[in-house]
Amino acid sequence: MRAEIITIGDELLIGQVVDTNSAWMAQKLNEQGIELYQITSVHDDREHIIAALNEAFNRADIVFTTGGLGPTKDDITKHVLCEYFGAHLIEDQSVRAHIEDLYKDRLDVLNRLTATQWLVPDKAEILENRVGSAPLMIFHKEDKLLACMPGVPYEMKIAMEEQILPYLQSKITNQKSKILHRTMQVTGIAESTLAILLDEFENSMPSGLHLAYLPKDGVIRLRLSSYGELTEKEMARYFADLKALVRDYLIVETDEPLEVIVGRLLTERHQTIATAESCTGGKLASLLNKHPGSSAFYYGSVISYDNSVKEHILGVPVEMIQAHGVVSEEVVRVMAESVRQQLRTDYAIATSGIGGPTGGTAAKPVGTVWMAWATPEGTTAECFHLGKLREQITDRACLKALVGLLKIINQKS
Amino acid sequence: MRAEIITIGDELLIGQVVDTNSAWMAQKLNEQGIELYQITSVHDDREHIIAALNEAFNRADIVFTTGGLGPTKDDITKHVLCEYFGAHLIEDQSVRAHIEDLYKDRLDVLNRLTATQWLVPDKAEILENRVGSAPLMIFHKEDKLLACMPGVPYEMKIAMEEQILPYLQSKITNQKSKILHRTMQVTGIAESTLAILLDEFENSMPSGLHLAYLPKDGVIRLRLSSYGELTEKEMARYFADLKALVRDYLIVETDEPLEVIVGRLLTERHQTIATAESCTGGKLASLLNKHPGSSAFYYGSVISYDNSVKEHILGVPVEMIQAHGVVSEEVVRVMAESVRQQLRTDYAIATSGIGGPTGGTAAKPVGTVWMAWATPEGTTAECFHLGKLREQITDRACLKALVGLLKIINQKS
Repeated sequence: MRAEIITIGDELLIGQVVDTNSAWMAQKLNEQGIELYQITSVHDDREHIIAALNEAFNRADIVFTTGGLGPTKDDITKHVLCEYFGAHLIEDQSVRAHIEDLYKDRLDVLNRLTATQWLVPDKAEILENRVGSAPLMIFHKEDKLLACMPGVPYEMKIAMEEQILPYLQSKITNQKSKILHRTMQVTGIAESTLAILLDEFENSMPSGLHLAYLPKDGVIRLRLSSYGELTEKEMARYFADLKALVRDYLIVETDEPLEVIVGRLLTERHQTIATAESCTGGKLASLLNKHPGSSAFYYGSVISYDNSVKEHILGVPVEMIQAHGVVSEEVVRVMAESVRQQLRTDYAIATSGIGGPTGGTAAKPVGTVWMAWATPEGTTAECFHLGKLREQITDRACLKALVGLLKIINQKS
Repeated sequence: MRAEIITIGDELLIGQVVDTNSAWMAQKLNEQGIELYQITSVHDDREHIIAALNEAFNRADIVFTTGGLGPTKDDITKHVLCEYFGAHLIEDQSVRAHIEDLYKDRLDVLNRLTATQWLVPDKAEILENRVGSAPLMIFHKEDKLLACMPGVPYEMKIAMEEQILPYLQSKITNQKSKILHRTMQVTGIAESTLAILLDEFENSMPSGLHLAYLPKDGVIRLRLSSYGELTEKEMARYFADLKALVRDYLIVETDEPLEVIVGRLLTERHQTIATAESCTGGKLASLLNKHPGSSAFYYGSVISYDNSVKEHILGVPVEMIQAHGVVSEEVVRVMAESVRQQLRTDYAIATSGIGGPTGGTAAKPVGTVWMAWATPEGTTAECFHLGKLREQITDRACLKALVGLLKIINQKS
């Protein structure tokens, strides 16, 4: 059972929008045992869309499209699909009722353009788009399927989870092969050194098993994949073998974002955390409170971008900053301990570094980041050199902060 | 001059990685007058890569690939390209010297796998990857070009800017057509209502001019595009006409992120800003300090996720929280004024809302967000209803905060 995604929209091809939909859909499809073979981004253009549909149907059993379903003239997907399938637009009373209900408090939106949204192709099955005006459409081409969704990410996600995936499950349960992915995350070793360490393991793997290396921001994700060839038990055995080989570098045995793991561990232990951030500028805070349930363990943060904030809110002595600089062990220790004490949390993390592009010196070049972890048992601090690019330094610093915290939490378990 | 991008990597097709490279490359290509026709993501698989190359060369003059150039076994791009172009791997002394220099402080990385990185196809032109071990490769196929880069975003960006784009400029200057994109951002009007407002304008546009609507988080980006048909002067005239039509809803006349515009205005005026964030959880802070130069205007933030932080750091009276709730006009006003006073900035923005999925009530459902802007002239506050999904609520709240601030700043100019 093979799928492809076609994302439709000029904005993707002039770089005005990053396609985050495809990765999300890919995960969901893999979970369902549906292999995603290719992702293709095309223009809002009749010939281009038709060519992409033909090519995708040649390779895959299910084709998904996102985008081009708005009421404005630049959106043409519905009309192109009518032509492709020889369909005609007809009014759908159920879609009309839904849209009228959707905008019952905003009657100005119920204009003649919005009214075109309840015109649907007579050869499509229509599923409800609970949160938007563009109905979801399923077309059949011989024994193959086309599922069309809006490109707005949250509309697409709700459409997939509530409508498209349940629809597919009801149609294809018998044909699914078991796709297995297992990922662990390691740190503190270069990718090539890791690959040499795993050379023998890789050579002994059966042909249906694949090992991938995904390095990012100092963490390498190691993924074992099987597309129907291995049983879960066999996969578990290879995963355990791999784990034993990398045990000195292992952070976690899952592909979850580190902040999710931190959040779960803290919640389980009824413990709390705060941050005092200079160079990470709130990014660590927003990682920690990104996911539902974070109010159980995340209390708050002080973002002390300017030195005055370090002095007035965090109580870092001005003499300390003068003597050691803001990017120093002394300062991050005070920052972490101060925010931990003021916010009354179990843990606190502080960051102070040089994000660049300016501000670097010979002794402390751009990328130098001091970090401290304050805990009930005391405070530790560490210095990192995290590259030369502002965004990369911030992202790597957030990961280092979480890796350091995980080590501390795990030591105590 | 048409280009295509092929992104290579199983991680893209199982959703482990979002392809951010393509949008960035698309922008750069458009700036150079090179039209990006299609983006295709394929597996680390010989047949798949070869098929994608053949199809892309049928449609485009320049093909870019990213990914699959690491030293580990899952990366096969270089070997597939050798087969495709009938090339053989040879040792490149200049690449070798560069890699040895790159890892001179980490000699353990100079292992036998890393040594495979200085083997390059004898039919490729080799360009230096300043920040990584995988050399950049240019292949020629009749009068067409293939440029191959690593998939790691920051390596790809430096490769494009320092090597690939200058290389292309030297080859193709004469053939470029002038691609023009002009974007403005509007808010406070539904997409369909806006399209009706612009109906006559759209009908009167020449065939070489395209108008696109890109709604996101309550802001609609309106883009005029021309692929070689219009002069800059003609484009400027249509853009001015469009601007006049949407003047009541206009935020800015560029496609820049709002935080960049806010930052530039504050820097020009030597003014500063701080935030007190509850529901946005540091995301507004990290937007404000995301870009270089932000230390000129951004001082810091207090992220008061837990009520204790609102009380102890921001001085919100506990009686006020009891009487009005944390998501209230009274509380956000105190938060904004308190952080403005404590951090001694010109402006401060405070947010407090219900991000969900739990915590909503009939009176204050999930998505309710109170926001306050404290300024030298006083404080204003406003309540918004920003949808039902946690991430969407946060993103929309950040945009509302920036739109509100821009209005205040612009009123004073």
